[in-house]
This record gives sequence, structure tokens and C-alpha cells, in this order.
Amino acid sequence: MSKAKSTAGNFFEDFRVGQVLQHATPRTLTVGDVALNIAFYGMRFAVQSSDHFAKAIGYARAPIDDLIVFHVVLGKTVSDISLNAVANLGYAEMRFLAPVFPGDSLSASSEVIGLRETSNKQAGVVYVRTKSVNQDGAPILEYARWVMVNKRDHAAKVGEAVVPKLDARVDPAKIGSAVPKLDLSAYDFALAGSAHRWGDYEPGEKIDHIDGYTIEEAEHQLETRLYQNTARVHFNLHEQIEKGRFKKRLVYGGTPLSLARGISFNGLANAFHIAAINGGSHVAPSFAGDTIYAWSEILEKAEIPGRSDIGALRVRLVGVKNRHCHDFPLKTADGKYEEGVVLDLDWWLVLPR
Amino acid sequence: MSKAKSTAGNFFEDFRVGQVLQHATPRTLTVGDVALNIAFYGMRFAVQSSDHFAKAIGYARAPIDDLIVFHVVLGKTVSDISLNAVANLGYAEMRFLAPVFPGDSLSASSEVIGLRETSNKQAGVVYVRTKSVNQDGAPILEYARWVMVNKRDHAAKVGEAVVPKLDARVDPAKIGSAVPKLDLSAYDFALAGSAHRWGDYEPGEKIDHIDGYTIEEAEHQLETRLYQNTARVHFNLHEQIEKGRFKKRLVYGGTPLSLARGISFNGLANAFHIAAINGGSHVAPSFAGDTIYAWSEILEKAEIPGRSDIGALRVRLVGVKNRHCHDFPLKTADGKYEEGVVLDLDWWLVLPR
Amino acid sequence: MSKAKSTAGNFFEDFRVGQVLQHATPRTLTVGDVALNIAFYGMRFAVQSSDHFAKAIGYARAPIDDLIVFHVVLGKTVSDISLNAVANLGYAEMRFLAPVFPGDSLSASSEVIGLRETSNKQAGVVYVRTKSVNQDGAPILEYARWVMVNKRDHAAKVGEAVVPKLDARVDPAKIGSAVPKLDLSAYDFALAGSAHRWGDYEPGEKIDHIDGYTIEEAEHQLETRLYQNTARVHFNLHEQIEKGRFKKRLVYGGTPLSLARGISFNGLANAFHIAAINGGSHVAPSFAGDTIYAWSEILEKAEIPGRSDIGALRVRLVGVKNRHCHDFPLKTADGKYEEGVVLDLDWWLVLPR
Repeated sequence: MSKAKSTAGNFFEDFRVGQVLQHATPRTLTVGDVALNIAFYGMRFAVQSSDHFAKAIGYARAPIDDLIVFHVVLGKTVSDISLNAVANLGYAEMRFLAPVFPGDSLSASSEVIGLRETSNKQAGVVYVRTKSVNQDGAPILEYARWVMVNKRDHAAKVGEAVVPKLDARVDPAKIGSAVPKLDLSAYDFALAGSAHRWGDYEPGEKIDHIDGYTIEEAEHQLETRLYQNTARVHFNLHEQIEKGRFKKRLVYGGTPLSLARGISFNGLANAFHIAAINGGSHVAPSFAGDTIYAWSEILEKAEIPGRSDIGALRVRLVGVKNRHCHDFPLKTADGKYEEGVVLDLDWWLVLPR
Repeated sequence: MSKAKSTAGNFFEDFRVGQVLQHATPRTLTVGDVALNIAFYGMRFAVQSSDHFAKAIGYARAPIDDLIVFHVVLGKTVSDISLNAVANLGYAEMRFLAPVFPGDSLSASSEVIGLRETSNKQAGVVYVRTKSVNQDGAPILEYARWVMVNKRDHAAKVGEAVVPKLDARVDPAKIGSAVPKLDLSAYDFALAGSAHRWGDYEPGEKIDHIDGYTIEEAEHQLETRLYQNTARVHFNLHEQIEKGRFKKRLVYGGTPLSLARGISFNGLANAFHIAAINGGSHVAPSFAGDTIYAWSEILEKAEIPGRSDIGALRVRLVGVKNRHCHDFPLKTADGKYEEGVVLDLDWWLVLPR
Repeated sequence: MSKAKSTAGNFFEDFRVGQVLQHATPRTLTVGDVALNIAFYGMRFAVQSSDHFAKAIGYARAPIDDLIVFHVVLGKTVSDISLNAVANLGYAEMRFLAPVFPGDSLSASSEVIGLRETSNKQAGVVYVRTKSVNQDGAPILEYARWVMVNKRDHAAKVGEAVVPKLDARVDPAKIGSAVPKLDLSAYDFALAGSAHRWGDYEPGEKIDHIDGYTIEEAEHQLETRLYQNTARVHFNLHEQIEKGRFKKRLVYGGTPLSLARGISFNGLANAFHIAAINGGSHVAPSFAGDTIYAWSEILEKAEIPGRSDIGALRVRLVGVKNRHCHDFPLKTADGKYEEGVVLDLDWWLVLPR
């Protein structure tokens, strides 16, 4: 009877293709989350920081940082999808579909779209498509994600492998719906922190974001709990010492991601909206005491059909720990990531034109 | 003149039976507190997490977590009651009387209901009944508490011992007023995280809540200050090294309590409201670096007169540090608490029927 | 191309007298900031803590703590003024001009009012006058500040020294505009935590505020980022080890300031408003692990012309680390600050009469 009511999470053999999991817990985002997001990552994008600035250009008020939405939605899925995950393998086709404002309540569900057992039959890759809606049922965020999940019983028989075909790049024609029509005459570039618009960036351009932030245990724990993320490796030192691979807590991958985003303000101050994430991987783990730096490369420049107010930049964001980024560390000659790289992300950012 | 305006707190001989202490500082609770409560303890109960969920079942909006109210009210009393306390001995007859929403302003007062000097005449037990009201004067929280407080002057003469008679159990007929009439047809058990209703639990059932959270210094300090609690042992390393018993800061007893409540979601996801606390004790201190686990035992199952929507479970919640709870650690054969037990609480939880 | 879009900040030779710098990022303050301010510093002033208390005496609702406003405005200026500062030398003529409420959006600009190269020609003192306005353009905060900023190129020629004349003391006739006409019959001194009004304090009186708070790395980092302050010395352990003077992170000077203010409640509970700062200096740096204590001396007592409801006290607030304040540590016989003193501030506080 001891564990009848509590759960240790799903294992690989518990999933079925086509299965839909409704995730607990719905969550109202508020200005409390907004303040914490600034305290956690030093976010300085004017649109999300100031109601007055946001209203002037056409928002109802300051929208909530896209990455808060991402973290909160991802956090909901952990108990059902990745509590027994051994590796977070990737993301694709992630789109931010509508602005989220303080007071909005988000819920999320995931459909299993693929399953593939590993060759050693001890685990398998679970592919899901996660969708989040607000209190009106309006789509807010959608993405595909795949994680490697342990089997409970290595001998358990599982079905044929199903591997979904996922786009390597979100079509720019499908992004931008989270940004209202902007009145750029009211967009104050001095207040926003930079004169550089969409048109000022060119593919191939690399930007060292210069600053570095050191992560403390209390910080990443507060962050990860705020997202109601229950992954044990982030919170439980006792268990990590007992049976963890590193004998210490691992930092949630979203922490270096949001830190890198915060740091990227220095060079991309007007890239106020994350419209889509084409792909991304957490290259190496971070731990308390690590200092996160970041750099970006402009990969592509795209117009958004029907929008003369905003344009999109496809940007590679690289997060690096304990190492400056003036030499843009990425991969060695043999194609492996250089020492220190923790994050390699490919996303569409929106800027005023 | 040096300490004329500032205060070092009351000592045992300063209290009189019948004395009423109006506590500073009144406090408006907001969505800022709600966000911090999630960041501190990973709270996931749907009713408190989502305005949309709460409205659907009959609340005006998401009510504030009952334990925030408890911590904030208790914090107010410290400067007047327990600044010179040597031990926090117990609670009884605690009832949460009305829902609290963001924007509500709470104040609190305490009446001294008992005084008993210790046999060595160096301290004494102070019994108080504390009441908190909101901005309209409506009762929000009421409880009895007793603490051992040092004497300033060991030679000071004090009156006859007065020891109040306190109930060991709150009558279930007296609880539930903080929950509006619920529309259970709108209560989404998938979103709430569990299919288990009041009727699914039975007395004698034990639940291992599985997860563990490690406490950091910064975390418990932020928490305890948020409650405007001024007990020095939690904040002042310099003084603890100088004259503290443990040479380090002690974690506020409310931290393992709220962590255990947060952890108990895994097994009691629908037990969304704390209606009453029958009794409780902080069995042993916690320190930064400790990992808190928890388990619960269903002690009793009660209908609430006049309510067909909700029922009450009397639950023993046990908080344990640095030790898993699959074997439900509690007491040894000789009746003493087992190593690692930090909290032993007896409370009434409300669930949908 | 690597640093074309990102900035390493201005150096001494980049400034010109008369130059006006519009600072990024505008910021809406909310109840999220209010909650964090209590969590960070344990603030207990009733006017800022309770909407109900504030409304009763004549505010629209609880105003935001004056020091939040100060930290947020100062934080905005860092990227433009002090990113390459070697020392924060002083403040003068600081006045809080209007109340700030949750929902107000602040922006700030600074005019360079003086420049003076150091004799070794490696740096120079930059004097600015910073002004912050709200969303309606109403003045909120105004102050002069001077910092020593490195030269990029020690050989760079700079203009003649210009040193502004700044008042050593703000005229009490110029303060108090941030406080509405108060209805003192509704000011509940028991709820506010002290019976001592303006009239109860006398020049020469010294108050030991007794309590001490130990600073953690996570705490000062969260605080400083909340203010969108980008000064690297506070966040980047990797760089401090590499080339910092102390090989560790320095605590933002605003942390001991706000902690000392929070501690000063014990002795100055009714001094709810900071009307002006006459001057102040960060005497010595603080580091994680330091415990901050504080004491105050009443320097002067002034009526505010036209106000029978409130009066002003000119108070010296001294912040001290790792040392109790019962003996009021300040300066040694030779005029140097005593070991442990970290903050020496001269401000006008407003109390009910």
C-alpha cells in the first residue's frame, strides 16, 4: 500500500504512440513570475520590462517573457514524460503562438508521436508533441521534444520503432502571430538599449555577448521549482550523493538557456521576441559555481509574410561555461563540441524593421 | 540612551495572563507571495496555482496557499512573543477560517492564555491564542501556541502557573468555512494531478511522498524574511558562531513544513486545503544542506456537516531529513523519534468527494 | 565584427560635460518587486507593507519602498556610466519626489555635470545628475552621483576639469512631496510597531538597531539582477578569479544599504519614508558570508513647511559588518573609519508628528 497513491513516473514501456497525456498542474502566470524572471536572469528587453513601453507600440501591456512560458510548460510535462529520463535529446518545431499576459492560466498536454527502443534494450527514446493553451483554449506554445527514458523492466517487450519526421527549421511564414501589429513610430530605440534593427544584422555576423553569470545552488533550485518542474536531479543532494553520476545536483538546462538569453541583450537588445526554436541541445551539464557566457551567430534573415513592422533573424545561440566568448567557442576540428560549451540553440528572433 | 527606541523582545516575566498583544506589521498578500511560494516549495495544488481552475469550481480566483497565511501570521508574533524563546513547543486548535486572496491585508493579535515557570526558574512556557483578521475584520486564522521563553532575571518572581486546556483534535464540524460551495462537475482531476478523491483514502493508509528537497541558506533566509519573521537564529551567522548552540544558522521550522507539504502533492494531489492543524511539533532542527523527505498516514476520515462536496482527512504528516521514507520512519521501540525525523504534524486536509 | 553590436561600456574619455544619456531599460514596478523586497531585506514598515494601512492614512494604496526605486534607477545607469568604474565615490542632493505604486513604469536619464581627470591620468571622476520619471513624465527621483571611471587609453587627452558645486544637505523645505496629506487619526501606532513619533526623537540620540543579517551569494545576485544592474563584479566569479582584486564577487553596495534600512525598523519603525539622501559613501566592500548590523544617530530635527502631519529627521545610518553596534562603531581617533564599517549615510527620514 505504501506507494499506491504516489507515483515514481512513467518508464519507457508505459508509453504508446498516439497516447495523449493531460499534464497537471494548470498555472496562472503573474507579475510575481515577471519579477522573479528579472531577478533570476537579469532580463532587460524593454517590451517585457515596461507596460508603458509595450502599450506605446501596440501591446495591451507588457507580455510575459517567452522563456517563462517555455519553462512552465516544460515543467508540467516532467512528471508524466521525463521523470525517469536519462537524457534530454532535443527540441524541434517549437513555436510561440500568442502573447501571454499576467493573469493568463496555462495548461498543457502531450501526444506521444514516436517510440524507439535503444539497442541495449535498457531504455528508449520517447518523442512527444506538447501543446499549451490558455484559459480560453487559445494555443500558446507548441513543440516536439524527444528524451531517452529508462525501462522499468529491461526484459519488457515493446512495439516496433516509430520515429517522427520533424522539420529542421520552422518556416518563417508560420511565425510572428504572438506579436500584434506594431506602431514603430512609438518604439524608442534609446530606451530599448540599441539602435540596431532587423536590417542592421547580416548572416554570418557573430556577436560576443561579453557578460558572464555565476550560478548558485539556491538560484537554480528556486528557478526550477517556480516552473513546478519535479526532476529530482536538480533538488536532491542526498540522493545525488547516494546514487547520482556526478555526486552533486545538476542545474536545470533552462537555467543556462535563460541566462544566455539575458546576456544576449548586449548585442541583440531589440530582438525582443522568441518566435520559434528550430532545434537545440543541452551539450553538457552545468553545476553550481559555473559561470555562463554566451555568443550568437546570425544564420539567416527572413521577412515575415504580411508584416512590414517586424522581421525575423535565425540565430544560433551558444552558451559556454567558465570561458570567455571573444573567440566564439563551438566545435573542434573533429566535429565535437569544445570544452565548456553547454548549449547550442537555433532560434528565430523577431526585431523591429 | 542606546537601546531606548529599539527592543530586544519580551522575556518570560514580561507576560501576564489575559494580556493582549497587537502585533506589527500588517501585510498585504499578493501574487508576488504566490510566485515565491511556488519557487520556495514547488507547490503544485491546482486550486492555488490556477485562477482558471479555481474559478471553474466556485472560488472568486485562486486562493492563497494556507501555509503562506500561517507563516505570515506566525512571523508577526515573533517580535512580541518568541524573540527570546528557547523552544517552540507546540500548536493546537488551529483553524483556517476564510479564504485569503491576493490583495487581502492581514493583521494579527495574541492573547496570553497561560504561563508556567520551569522548575529551574530560568525560563517559562508562554501559551498564547493568536487570531488574524483581514482588512474587513473577518477572522482568517486562529490557533493556540506555546513556547518556552527565557527569563531576563532568573530571580524575578512570577505568578501561579496557569495552563490552558486545549483540544487534541479540532472537531470536523468546525472546519471547512474557507472553502466555498464547490461545483465538482468542473473539478478536472486530470489537471489536478490525481484521480483520488476523499473516498479513496482509508484510515491506516500510509503514503511515501518519495521526493526530497535540499535546503540552501539563501532559500530559508529569503523565506523567513518574506514572512517578516525576525527570529535571529535564522539569519545571523556572526552571532551563531559567537554564542549559538550549533555554531550555524537554524532553518525556520516552517521551511521543512512547507517543503513536506509541497512534496506531499505526490500522493495527496487533491488535498488542496488545510482546514485545521490539531497539533504539531518541530522534532529536530534542520540546517542548510539537509534534504527533506516526507510521508503521510491517514488517521481518520470525516464528513463535514452540511457539505456533500468536500470531506476531511485527518492526516499525520512526518518530515524526515537525509533519509528516504519508504519505511515510514517515526519512532523507535522506546517511544523516541527516530534519527532524521524533523516534523510530526497532525492536520485536517480537505478533498473533493 | 565580433563586438560591433555589443558594448563594453563607456570610458572616462567618452564623456562630455552637458551630455545627456537616456538609459535603457524602462521598468514597470509591481507587487512582485514588493514581495522580493521583503524577502531580501525583511522590510517591516507598515505603510509599504499593507494597502489597508496605507489607504487608511491617505495613500491610494501601499507605495513602493523608496529604496527599490533607488536601486532600479541606479541599476539603469550602470551600463552607460559605471560599467568601467573603479570606485563609487558619492551621492548628493537626492530627493524622492513622488510616491511610486505597483504598475508605475520608470525610466531614467543622466546629464554629465562634471569631469575631472585623476592626477595619474589613468582614470577620472564623472559627475552626473540622474533623473527618473514615471509613465506620465512626472519626476520621481533626482540625485547627483560621482564615480571614478577608467580611461580606455591612458594617453587620451581630455578637457579642463569641471567640478560641480553640490549641497551638503538637502533643504527640508524641498522634501515631503512624495507623502500625501496624512490622516494621523487613522495611523495605528501599535500596528506600525512603535509609539515613537517625530517629536520623540532628539538630535544626538543614537540607536543600536541590534539585529544582524548574513549575506549569501545567491541573495545579492538575485537582488542586483532584479534592479537590472549589470556591474560585472557582482555576478561573475570566473572573471573575479581571473583578474579581480579580491578573487571573489563583491556585494552590490545597495545590499548592505537596504539591509541596514530593514534592520533600522527596530528603533525607527515610524520613519516610513526616505525623503532625501544628503550624502553617503560605501566605506568598504561586503562579501557573501558577511553579517550586516546597523546603528543610527539623529543629526537634526526639522519641520517641513506647510506640513503639520509629518516631520523630518536627519539621520546618520551606519552599516557595520561582523560586529555588534552597541558601542556605535564609526571612526578612530585619527579620523579613519573603524574596521567593519561598510556604509555611512546621511538621510532625511519622514515620520508622523
